[in-house]
Amino acid sequence: MFIAEVIGNVWGTRKHPSLEKRRLLLVRAIDPMTEKPLGEAQMAVDGGVGSGPGSVVLVIDEGGSARQILKDKEAPIRAVVCGIVDSVSMGGKTKRYA
Amino acid sequence: MFIAEVIGNVWGTRKHPSLEKRRLLLVRAIDPMTEKPLGEAQMAVDGGVGSGPGSVVLVIDEGGSARQILKDKEAPIRAVVCGIVDSVSMGGKTKRYA
Amino acid sequence: MFIAEVIGNVWGTRKHPSLEKRRLLLVRAIDPMTEKPLGEAQMAVDGGVGSGPGSVVLVIDEGGSARQILKDKEAPIRAVVCGIVDSVSMGGKTKRYA
Amino acid sequence: MFIAEVIGNVWGTRKHPSLEKRRLLLVRAIDPMTEKPLGEAQMAVDGGVGSGPGSVVLVIDEGGSARQILKDKEAPIRAVVCGIVDSVSMGGKTKRYA
Amino acid sequence: MFIAEVIGNVWGTRKHPSLEKRRLLLVRAIDPMTEKPLGEAQMAVDGGVGSGPGSVVLVIDEGGSARQILKDKEAPIRAVVCGIVDSVSMGGKTKRYA
Repeated sequence: MFIAEVIGNVWGTRKHPSLEKRRLLLVRAIDPMTEKPLGEAQMAVDGGVGSGPGSVVLVIDEGGSARQILKDKEAPIRAVVCGIVDSVSMGGKTKRYA
Repeated sequence: MFIAEVIGNVWGTRKHPSLEKRRLLLVRAIDPMTEKPLGEAQMAVDGGVGSGPGSVVLVIDEGGSARQILKDKEAPIRAVVCGIVDSVSMGGKTKRYA
Repeated sequence: MFIAEVIGNVWGTRKHPSLEKRRLLLVRAIDPMTEKPLGEAQMAVDGGVGSGPGSVVLVIDEGGSARQILKDKEAPIRAVVCGIVDSVSMGGKTKRYA
Repeated sequence: MFIAEVIGNVWGTRKHPSLEKRRLLLVRAIDPMTEKPLGEAQMAVDGGVGSGPGSVVLVIDEGGSARQILKDKEAPIRAVVCGIVDSVSMGGKTKRYA
Repeated sequence: MFIAEVIGNVWGTRKHPSLEKRRLLLVRAIDPMTEKPLGEAQMAVDGGVGSGPGSVVLVIDEGGSARQILKDKEAPIRAVVCGIVDSVSMGGKTKRYA
């Protein structure tokens, strides 16, 4: 599980049926205290928490978990946004996102 | 799941039976806004979306998902092309591929 | 499985129900002899060992294992703190944490 | 799945029973057009395609797939050689291995 | 699966019950011909092959395999020592460990 910022959307008309009703997001891992981007953008699906570009979110990156969250045993999906981050505390400091 | 460009084909006559009816593709992750290649080429199988060299695609890289898409519980495959990308938007800009 | 230090907490109100009763931790892998941080912080859930910021812990990073520890077949969680490190020995030296 | 060259063999007498009848290979990922090595050597098991040192092969690196190929639900194996590469084409060029 | 050297032990009293009867080892991947360390130390559990500090071993790093070797469907373990390396051959040279 990692903390990421939602940075974009992806659209495609030809895709697997399980993906048709899903919002495809581009997310990028960030350092939760400094918001510094870590690594490249990757794709994720919103897991019912209502995230969109600008949201700071929890992403779970494992197929079994993704299928549990989406309640779809056949979803060909590995990374799902499963929470919205309100705040993070580290070393006595707190960073608020909400 | 990541966005990639299909960059080549691979052929082999001696291979596992489940691979025999599959088109073996070489894909490389790209930055979806700049098309800059990210990392090395890897192999994937077309999951019925009709991709080929030059296509910009969604690749899912997890065994359970791959077997769902291919409707083959025994397929020894981990990465499958599961969609064709039409467009990507990020930071107010949109990149169109189709 | 790796050795990490718990370095922070994460809070969010909108999240998947399985996460609601869990303490969300930020952990960072460390070299167990020198305590040097290795790589970026990642998220984990306490698996009933009572860890918190400052604890040096064992983290298991695999979905099937996480669900076993939490005794929740539906938990969308991949990394769980499954032990507290008392000491580590390497090359004839011992480092004590407890 | 990736393309690799078989570069060596590994022997051990004390090992898990499922490994006893398997040929243990050292493989290293290569760029399929230039044969440039990518990353470190890793271990794989031949999945019935008759590979050996010098072979250019397809390696699948996922536990579920490995157990399917080996037809052994209990095999503690993650990487299996599942095909021999005959040729690769990319950007209008073709590299032949067989 | 990779080749590693066992470089240390880890102890902890508060841990998940499945870990209680296991010997926790620190292993580090090595180049099997030169013994050069590759990457950071990680944790593994001995899978009944009797390894300890100084042993050159085969490590399997996948949850399903780990649970097969340990014959414990609930073990929250991902990396297990599943063999002792006797020798490795590459490029006409042989390196003996036993």
